[in-house]
Amino acid sequence: MTDDDGNKVHADASTFSSGVTKEEAYEQVLMQAEGLFFEQRNWVCNLANTASLLWHAYKSMPGASAEVNWAGFYTIDPLSTPQKPQLILAPFQGAVACQTILFGRGVCGTAALKQTTQLVPDVRLFPGHIACDARSLSEIVVPIVVDGRTVAIIDVDCAVVGGFDEVDKRWLERLGGLVGGGCDWP
Amino acid sequence: MTDDDGNKVHADASTFSSGVTKEEAYEQVLMQAEGLFFEQRNWVCNLANTASLLWHAYKSMPGASAEVNWAGFYTIDPLSTPQKPQLILAPFQGAVACQTILFGRGVCGTAALKQTTQLVPDVRLFPGHIACDARSLSEIVVPIVVDGRTVAIIDVDCAVVGGFDEVDKRWLERLGGLVGGGCDWP
Repeated sequence: MTDDDGNKVHADASTFSSGVTKEEAYEQVLMQAEGLFFEQRNWVCNLANTASLLWHAYKSMPGASAEVNWAGFYTIDPLSTPQKPQLILAPFQGAVACQTILFGRGVCGTAALKQTTQLVPDVRLFPGHIACDARSLSEIVVPIVVDGRTVAIIDVDCAVVGGFDEVDKRWLERLGGLVGGGCDWP
Repeated sequence: MTDDDGNKVHADASTFSSGVTKEEAYEQVLMQAEGLFFEQRNWVCNLANTASLLWHAYKSMPGASAEVNWAGFYTIDPLSTPQKPQLILAPFQGAVACQTILFGRGVCGTAALKQTTQLVPDVRLFPGHIACDARSLSEIVVPIVVDGRTVAIIDVDCAVVGGFDEVDKRWLERLGGLVGGGCDWP
C-alpha cells in the first residue's frame, strides 16, 4: 500500500507464512525491517514496527518460539545519569512491562551493562532476575551498541523453559545491528 | 511485582477478566494507566504500556470490540514543520503500520487537524482513507490535545464494520485526557 506521499508500508509485512523455519522467519524480519527503515530514522517509529514484525514472526515459528509472550525494546532513560544509567520501556508487543531497569539489574540490565547477549534458558535461575511477568520462563536480551554506547536492548520472553538458542542469538544480534544503525538515537 | 527500586509494575495489569462489560474494561484501563503514570512521565514508556492495556482490554470485551486488530498511538513527527505538520507512528499493538500521516489526511490526520474524535463505522466510506491494513473496516481516532496543540492521537482499528460506538468515544476521550496530562511531550 502506498499513500499519496509514497510512504510504502503495509500491514502484510506482519504476515508470516506458517510452516516456515526459524531462520526463514528471522530473515523476513530483517528484510522487512530494512525496508521500513529506508528514509525513516525515527527511533520510536522504527522500534514500534520492529516489535510488531518480531511478534508476528514468532507466532509463525515452529516449536518453543511460538510460545514467545513478549517482544520489544528498552532504551536509555534520558532522565538517568551516566553515573547511574537505567533503561526505560520502549515499544513492545505483549503484556504491560516494568518501566525502568537499572544497568546491571536482571537479564536486561546485565545485557545493557556488559554489552553482551544474555541467553537465559530458565530465568528463575538468573541471579537478580526481575519478574515482570511470572509467565515468562526463558529470555534473550541483545544489546544495541552504537559507538561504544548501549542505546537500547532487544528483549524477548518465552512462556516455556529453553525458548531460545544460538539461532535466535545470531539473528537477533543481526537485527540489533540493523536497528542500531537504522535509527537516530537521542 | 516490585523491583528493588520500588518500580511497581506487573504484567497482570494486562489481565482483564472475560465477561466484563465494555465500560468495566475501559474503567480498568483508566485505573491501570493512572497507576502506571504515577511518577513516570516518559511519553514513550507510557504510550507503550497504554497500548498494551488497550489491546488486552479489547480482547476481553464482548461483541465487536473483541475484533479490534490494532490499538496504539501516533505523535507529532518532530521533523515536520508547523506549516506542514505530520503524525509519526508511536507505540502500538497489532500489525505493522503506516509510518507517517500528514495532518488532514485520512481518519488519523483528520482527527489531528480538527482536534475532534473521528468515529468511522466503515472506513471504506471515509474520504481519503489510508488503508494501511485492508482487514481494518472500522476505526476510532481520538486527538490528544495539550495547551491547544495536538501532541498525539489514539488510533484503534476493528476488523468488523461498526466496531465502535459512543461508549468507546467517551472512554477513549477520557483516556486521551489522562495520557495528555500524564506525559511530558517533546
